[in-house]
Amino acid sequence: MISRSMTTITAPIRNGIDTAQVYGTLDALKDQPDLARFEFRVSNRWIDGPHSRSTVQGFWGAGQEDSSRETPFELDVSEPPLLFGHNEAPNPAEFLLHALAGCLTLTIVNVAAARKVTLTEVSSTLEGIMDARGATGLDDSYRNGFEEIRVSFSIKGDASPEKLQEIVERAKARSVVYDILANPVRVDVRAEVG
Amino acid sequence: MISRSMTTITAPIRNGIDTAQVYGTLDALKDQPDLARFEFRVSNRWIDGPHSRSTVQGFWGAGQEDSSRETPFELDVSEPPLLFGHNEAPNPAEFLLHALAGCLTLTIVNVAAARKVTLTEVSSTLEGIMDARGATGLDDSYRNGFEEIRVSFSIKGDASPEKLQEIVERAKARSVVYDILANPVRVDVRAEVG
Repeated sequence: MISRSMTTITAPIRNGIDTAQVYGTLDALKDQPDLARFEFRVSNRWIDGPHSRSTVQGFWGAGQEDSSRETPFELDVSEPPLLFGHNEAPNPAEFLLHALAGCLTLTIVNVAAARKVTLTEVSSTLEGIMDARGATGLDDSYRNGFEEIRVSFSIKGDASPEKLQEIVERAKARSVVYDILANPVRVDVRAEVG
Repeated sequence: MISRSMTTITAPIRNGIDTAQVYGTLDALKDQPDLARFEFRVSNRWIDGPHSRSTVQGFWGAGQEDSSRETPFELDVSEPPLLFGHNEAPNPAEFLLHALAGCLTLTIVNVAAARKVTLTEVSSTLEGIMDARGATGLDDSYRNGFEEIRVSFSIKGDASPEKLQEIVERAKARSVVYDILANPVRVDVRAEVG
């Protein structure tokens, strides 16, 4: 019981994050940088119209193939009737906003845990704005994708407003998905046909 | 019955896409370009650790608020144990790959329908590669996000290999999510704190 109390004092679970595990992982990455390579994967299969289904299970990380998911996740994606689907699932643009929301939120939670801030609320609304004249090919002066993404967080915790704002800024500077959207990524598309 | 047959001949449902609806939509956008503005939205709420949940329902498009979804979609996102979660759902990077898979696939299907090509298979595998020394802040010579995304399609349909490859190229040139990943997007992040 004493040792458990001591552990709790030196490296608690904060915001649901086991900070001892986080620091252990950072130390391991410093010692063995080749553990830092991650490869995430999705397999997708078309169903009908704009409706397709992805399977998510394994990934490469920390020097090995991860086998923690006994059963795969299945994710559908489609479009509403206005965009020629039947609302079988959210559409790709909405999944992209969901990815950004999830990534910024968990990065805020991790940063707060590292800075010994206990959060009681992190909620957000995201908007992605586009002009369909781009993707439809009607007017090339518009891009295909979002012109802008707007993210509004509401955050509560046991720290000053200044410290909470700093946590948001740090999370923005470290978020995987924020970086992928804000900056260009090389996307290599190949097809085996026939 | 005769008029239905005629409609079927001139503008069939191909690949699950109602091509008459597609051409009608394009004509409407040409006449009233302000219908082309779309605003997609996600609301997200943190649950615990890296686990959060998004709600997806309404969006703005074609000059009005869409109300076709009677009940909202709910999407969880988390991390595997290696990244301090409990596999409650796929992680943000995997949702991003799912968004890209769904978007490229439905764009291929739409382009093929417009070009009178009937597809029998569109399947894909996607890989996103990153070095966690970036996002962890251990080494700023690595970016936070994916260094590269690799997409491999397998496509079958009633057209020549050359035509199927052209369809893939055209889809890449018109995909909403491909553009968002390959090119920078302005992402405005604000927080109300305390």
